[in-house]
Amino acid sequence: MDRIKNAKLKERIVSAEAAAALIAPGSTVGVSGFTSAGYPKLVPGALAKRAEAGEDLRLTVISGASVGDELDGVLARSGAVARRYPYQSNKDLRAAINDGRIAYADIHLGQLPYLVRSGVLGPVDTAVIEASAILEDGSIVPTMCVGSSDTFVQCARQVIVELNTAVPDLTGLHDIYTPALPPDTQPIPLVRPSDRIGQTAIPCDPEKICAIVLSDTPDVGGPGTAPDEVTTQIAKNLVAFLQNEQKAGRLADPLPPLQSGVGATGNAILSVLAESGMRGMDLYSEVLQSAVLDMIDSGTVAFASGCALSFTPAYQKKFYDGFETYREKIVLRPQEISNSAEVIRRLGVIAINTAIEADLSGNVNSTHIDGCRLMNGIGGSGDYARNAGLTVFVTPATAKDGALSCIVPYVSHVDHTEHDTDVIITEYGAADLRGRTAYERAELLIETCAAPAFRPQLREYMERVKKECRWHHGIPVLK
Amino acid sequence: MDRIKNAKLKERIVSAEAAAALIAPGSTVGVSGFTSAGYPKLVPGALAKRAEAGEDLRLTVISGASVGDELDGVLARSGAVARRYPYQSNKDLRAAINDGRIAYADIHLGQLPYLVRSGVLGPVDTAVIEASAILEDGSIVPTMCVGSSDTFVQCARQVIVELNTAVPDLTGLHDIYTPALPPDTQPIPLVRPSDRIGQTAIPCDPEKICAIVLSDTPDVGGPGTAPDEVTTQIAKNLVAFLQNEQKAGRLADPLPPLQSGVGATGNAILSVLAESGMRGMDLYSEVLQSAVLDMIDSGTVAFASGCALSFTPAYQKKFYDGFETYREKIVLRPQEISNSAEVIRRLGVIAINTAIEADLSGNVNSTHIDGCRLMNGIGGSGDYARNAGLTVFVTPATAKDGALSCIVPYVSHVDHTEHDTDVIITEYGAADLRGRTAYERAELLIETCAAPAFRPQLREYMERVKKECRWHHGIPVLK
Repeated sequence: MDRIKNAKLKERIVSAEAAAALIAPGSTVGVSGFTSAGYPKLVPGALAKRAEAGEDLRLTVISGASVGDELDGVLARSGAVARRYPYQSNKDLRAAINDGRIAYADIHLGQLPYLVRSGVLGPVDTAVIEASAILEDGSIVPTMCVGSSDTFVQCARQVIVELNTAVPDLTGLHDIYTPALPPDTQPIPLVRPSDRIGQTAIPCDPEKICAIVLSDTPDVGGPGTAPDEVTTQIAKNLVAFLQNEQKAGRLADPLPPLQSGVGATGNAILSVLAESGMRGMDLYSEVLQSAVLDMIDSGTVAFASGCALSFTPAYQKKFYDGFETYREKIVLRPQEISNSAEVIRRLGVIAINTAIEADLSGNVNSTHIDGCRLMNGIGGSGDYARNAGLTVFVTPATAKDGALSCIVPYVSHVDHTEHDTDVIITEYGAADLRGRTAYERAELLIETCAAPAFRPQLREYMERVKKECRWHHGIPVLK
Repeated sequence: MDRIKNAKLKERIVSAEAAAALIAPGSTVGVSGFTSAGYPKLVPGALAKRAEAGEDLRLTVISGASVGDELDGVLARSGAVARRYPYQSNKDLRAAINDGRIAYADIHLGQLPYLVRSGVLGPVDTAVIEASAILEDGSIVPTMCVGSSDTFVQCARQVIVELNTAVPDLTGLHDIYTPALPPDTQPIPLVRPSDRIGQTAIPCDPEKICAIVLSDTPDVGGPGTAPDEVTTQIAKNLVAFLQNEQKAGRLADPLPPLQSGVGATGNAILSVLAESGMRGMDLYSEVLQSAVLDMIDSGTVAFASGCALSFTPAYQKKFYDGFETYREKIVLRPQEISNSAEVIRRLGVIAINTAIEADLSGNVNSTHIDGCRLMNGIGGSGDYARNAGLTVFVTPATAKDGALSCIVPYVSHVDHTEHDTDVIITEYGAADLRGRTAYERAELLIETCAAPAFRPQLREYMERVKKECRWHHGIPVLK
């Protein structure tokens, strides 16, 4: 096992079951993993077996962000988890949350590590971290994400490492910088997405590593790269908007670093950017998707800073095969840095995230259907939206095959307020809400973004607002 | 006029009318002023006379924050203003906004200067800045606030200075640091509230100063310092909460720097803190109220960093008389720095702001009544709430002499989402919402914060939510 450079630590290799036995009922477990990359894949299964055998585990599980089914799925189905932070995207876990069986709180990803280190979420008993190598001094080289692993390792009483040989030794990909708590916090010395400001591995006292489990399972991987007609049109509207801002002198050329959410729209945006002729741009994002590798290959992207690599299996292979080259163009950081208010604001990041729905005031719902059904969670969208140089939300104009408008009078759950949403873009157009009054925004959103079929009833809503409200600044929920 | 160190500039002293004549109809004016401190008091009146004489001025007025009636009141009443950013608290301006006669958009105070410099709000034609001195090189020493004056001076084509001799020469009070736009933005090198990182005056090319108007009118001044029974009890609950967090090791001793909003509750908090025996704390806030001087005198406060001094006339005198001493303990910064996400997060600021109402999810309304009637605006509350180490909102449990509950099922306008509100405090108690699910938060808010008379109907709302909703994560608006 030459991935473990510390001879004494090699003696701590045990089975997943033996490692899981070190985790006490009622305890808090911090796990690596960020949007289905770099999460532990064996110890959770062994914990689930204990729960299935009747043990009342009542675990609190804190991750970086969403993780694969081998973690959130098996634990949720087995009943091992009582409480879960800060984000998820697993079908069975989501069902348990929406049934009230698992307590869940949605937490800004960029703030989670601070909350953990300052003790607000209680002590972390065990960290379970997927690694690609362990160094002589105990330092842990992560796999395809950093997430909050640096904070979990720092805070945990004990550390279980899942050493995954399905991933090559990724030394040199990561840049680990963990801010001190106030009053000792210093400026984060990052002024370009490509700056390296920390260490290549997560510092860890070797005495804290209580077990090492050998793993050979690849990440389930991120979504595919095929945009459809609607997402492509959204992406075209976005790129046209950005180019127009450049022409007007309100955006630099090359563009400020981009952050783009995961999924079909994110991939469509990357594709259209690649085709637009823009070159040499940087990404300062949380999740880097498969399309990023193509954009680096073509020169569209000069450098990509992220927190996780959420690649399809084919792009995982492409990345591993070209690792020596790609690591000059890609860095993975802790989510506290990738999603840092300080850095996002300094770089003037263009933040592009997906809305479930947006309302006539410009409020955005990113998390709930009908106000009571959690989808995934707010994730990092708030970290970026609140502090970006330009905050864009994209959404198809309609959902459910055109049956529902995604531009609504009032969103059923507010995740981003009218104060934070600069531009809303659908396949019909881009509404620039900056400096606009509530009524001006409503008109822009109806006439530019809403699907034509829904415009009459949205106009009617605004007519009612104008007639029925005694005051005329703000768009309330009418009965 | 020995307050003007540049001989050539002395020749540009003119009447307010002559200065106002330099402002063209349809243009954008950036004015000094932040919460009724340091705003120009004569040129606006001269502009109003032009409007009253029938000229169609259609001005866009951008300030730091709210300003006195000599600016917002006279301009609103005269019909000179078409558009107003980013905050206000004037009765007549508010009425015009709520009637739809003046277009207004609520903008985070900490983000305004960036939006102005990057051109998003259009060019600034004229800056009108109240000063206590003008230096040989044209630099402008502000009066009782900095606000966005540094940015307006930098961006404006021409600068009109109102030199106010009702205020002593305040050289040494201010610390002017204006970040460069991306991609040249550097880390803000501020790690303690007392750090000075910039210049004592606002840099200004003397050729840009087109007119100087002599003024001798004091600021209207901030609110008084008399807390009532309810606000005192809210303050006691807050201080007890903070002390408990210190005991639990989740907050340091001395406390991290405090930010506290303006008004009766703000003053009550400062009074109770002073009586609590806490000593040596720092303030990192936007507006510093009268009580701050007493706290500095008594040693409760070691250092106070702000953007404006909103003192009653008696405390203005106290400050001017003791200026040589106080300027060692007080600094005024541009609002981009006092409200900087980067600095607020780095310092782990405890942010305490007032809510109009809070709902069972933890969403906070800071701006609107009934969703359509603007009160003042979001001001800096979002800058602090989103990035603070601990975000507290305070509100009396009821309004209108007990007729209305300020804890409601669903707020009529969301300014701060459940993701950003850590603790809600009323005179009945403190609800710590961190890491809690939506239902747990609702229960905490009902049983801890709501007035006992309103608890039964709030409980009934939650019973309906539990019964009528098919999913159980989130509290929707029920019909």
